[in-house]
Amino acid sequence: MVKFLGSQLDRTFAALVDPTRRAILARLALGETSVSELAEPFDISGPAISRHLKVLEHAGLIARGREAQWRPCRIELNALKGVDDWLEEYRRLWEQRLDRLEDYLRTLQSESRQDETPAKKPEKKRGRKK
Amino acid sequence: MVKFLGSQLDRTFAALVDPTRRAILARLALGETSVSELAEPFDISGPAISRHLKVLEHAGLIARGREAQWRPCRIELNALKGVDDWLEEYRRLWEQRLDRLEDYLRTLQSESRQDETPAKKPEKKRGRKK
Repeated sequence: MVKFLGSQLDRTFAALVDPTRRAILARLALGETSVSELAEPFDISGPAISRHLKVLEHAGLIARGREAQWRPCRIELNALKGVDDWLEEYRRLWEQRLDRLEDYLRTLQSESRQDETPAKKPEKKRGRKK
Repeated sequence: MVKFLGSQLDRTFAALVDPTRRAILARLALGETSVSELAEPFDISGPAISRHLKVLEHAGLIARGREAQWRPCRIELNALKGVDDWLEEYRRLWEQRLDRLEDYLRTLQSESRQDETPAKKPEKKRGRKK
């Protein structure tokens, strides 16, 4: 029986499904800002933005200031680091595959060089004369 | 108005929300396998596994063989590379923050060294004699 870790990852991925929420994160990566400033480029209502911010906050992807008048939002990077850590295993996998592909291409190259050596050597020598 | 790119990312993140699907990916990272073998460690029904596989396939995270009897599943890495690319911007951000933290710590260290220099220099010299 496989044990399931990672309700944090569940929340992170669920928050990242929505492109508006990813766009909010991209904006906050530039620096903290107020909710109204954050809402400006989006063609959706204030309450809809608030709901998105709640999902992001619940997932630990953003934090909000405690100032009464102006509650600036800022990005929190730990949850994204969790995704990065989770990816590590797969990153290793595609790096291995890339290495194998490079080895294979190198083998092909050296084989084709051996094949053409007897026939093409004289031609190459002629080609190099000027 | 912000333009939304990334329906591929939408599908990838939606597929990754479920821990069973992430566990299936982790199994497939070890090598391709049949559906029945894949289902074995999970305490859920065959049809439930099939539904998860369909979501993963739709997101481009796995591919299934065309053999009539045995349709092996294998992991497809491109969609995960998409997540890795998306993370790049944020990775840069936490590396910058780490760099700034290191700079700050270095400043603190050099300041505290300057502060203690007049008083502790003689003591240090004594300490080094053997």
